[in-house]
Amino acid sequence: MEDFIDLCLARQSCRKFADRPVEREKLVRCAEAARLAPSGCNAQPWSFVLVRDPAAVQGVAEATQQLELNEYTSAAKAFFVIVEEHAVLIPRLRRLIDSQYFADFDVGAAANYICLEAEAQGLGTCMLGIFDREKLSQLLGIPAEKQIRLVIAVGYPADGKLRAKVRKPLDEVLRVIE
Amino acid sequence: MEDFIDLCLARQSCRKFADRPVEREKLVRCAEAARLAPSGCNAQPWSFVLVRDPAAVQGVAEATQQLELNEYTSAAKAFFVIVEEHAVLIPRLRRLIDSQYFADFDVGAAANYICLEAEAQGLGTCMLGIFDREKLSQLLGIPAEKQIRLVIAVGYPADGKLRAKVRKPLDEVLRVIE
Repeated sequence: MEDFIDLCLARQSCRKFADRPVEREKLVRCAEAARLAPSGCNAQPWSFVLVRDPAAVQGVAEATQQLELNEYTSAAKAFFVIVEEHAVLIPRLRRLIDSQYFADFDVGAAANYICLEAEAQGLGTCMLGIFDREKLSQLLGIPAEKQIRLVIAVGYPADGKLRAKVRKPLDEVLRVIE
Repeated sequence: MEDFIDLCLARQSCRKFADRPVEREKLVRCAEAARLAPSGCNAQPWSFVLVRDPAAVQGVAEATQQLELNEYTSAAKAFFVIVEEHAVLIPRLRRLIDSQYFADFDVGAAANYICLEAEAQGLGTCMLGIFDREKLSQLLGIPAEKQIRLVIAVGYPADGKLRAKVRKPLDEVLRVIE
């Protein structure tokens, strides 16, 4: 595959979704990609709730609209809700670090796999890190002791325009020892 | 792009590197991909040290070989060392959460972008989460107050054999509300 960087360039946070339903199989394919993500000790400390039911989608949208932010999520057609699960590490590490030590990296990986696979299929996504946890847990029947870590809004982008990426220049973030 | 899942399937932790140098431009391209990764509030709370100098490569390898683990890193031809940097969040979030709240997700994203771009170019990688921080910081001139979060060993795989992926079945990690 020659064009992973093209995929990186194409993926952008989508904050304007088209009023067009999203095919179930495309969403499941995103979860399939996430399932393949690497994780510390291959613990796979994640589970995914894919929300497609319109009333539940509306409820998740509302739970992401704290702080008068993120009103655009009302137009999303589906959501992935990523729940952190218990990680089983190899015994040698278990003695040194907490079982969930790698879980945030791992959730970050899985979330990005979802977004990249969505982009590869022409879907737009936006990752949301701030939401009403209690409301979401209740709405989706997630036990109170489990942590919801990220929410991803999904839909077809209302316009396909690619924005210029705002990033620090490479020489500011990369140092080479050679 | 139709084949992101193929890239996910192809990427695997490489623990046997070939005795073959890795082109500088391929490594820089991995950093270029990582630079494009998304982050909370687009804070980009990362910097990358690319280690190519043979003596420094050997030093990094040794710093990853605690616990009698990871001896294979001695055959790596380069390393990426990912350092967490200060994240500037938008003011509304800054009042609610710590500036580094999303940094682990973000580092997880950048690390995976490096590994996926490496795979796309035929390189093998292995992410390492346990290492001698003090030794590494000293060796690479990273200020003591900065956190090294992940190390990625890079090289050409000694064999191209794809192992079967060991993952939880999809119906164990995915619940659909529809």
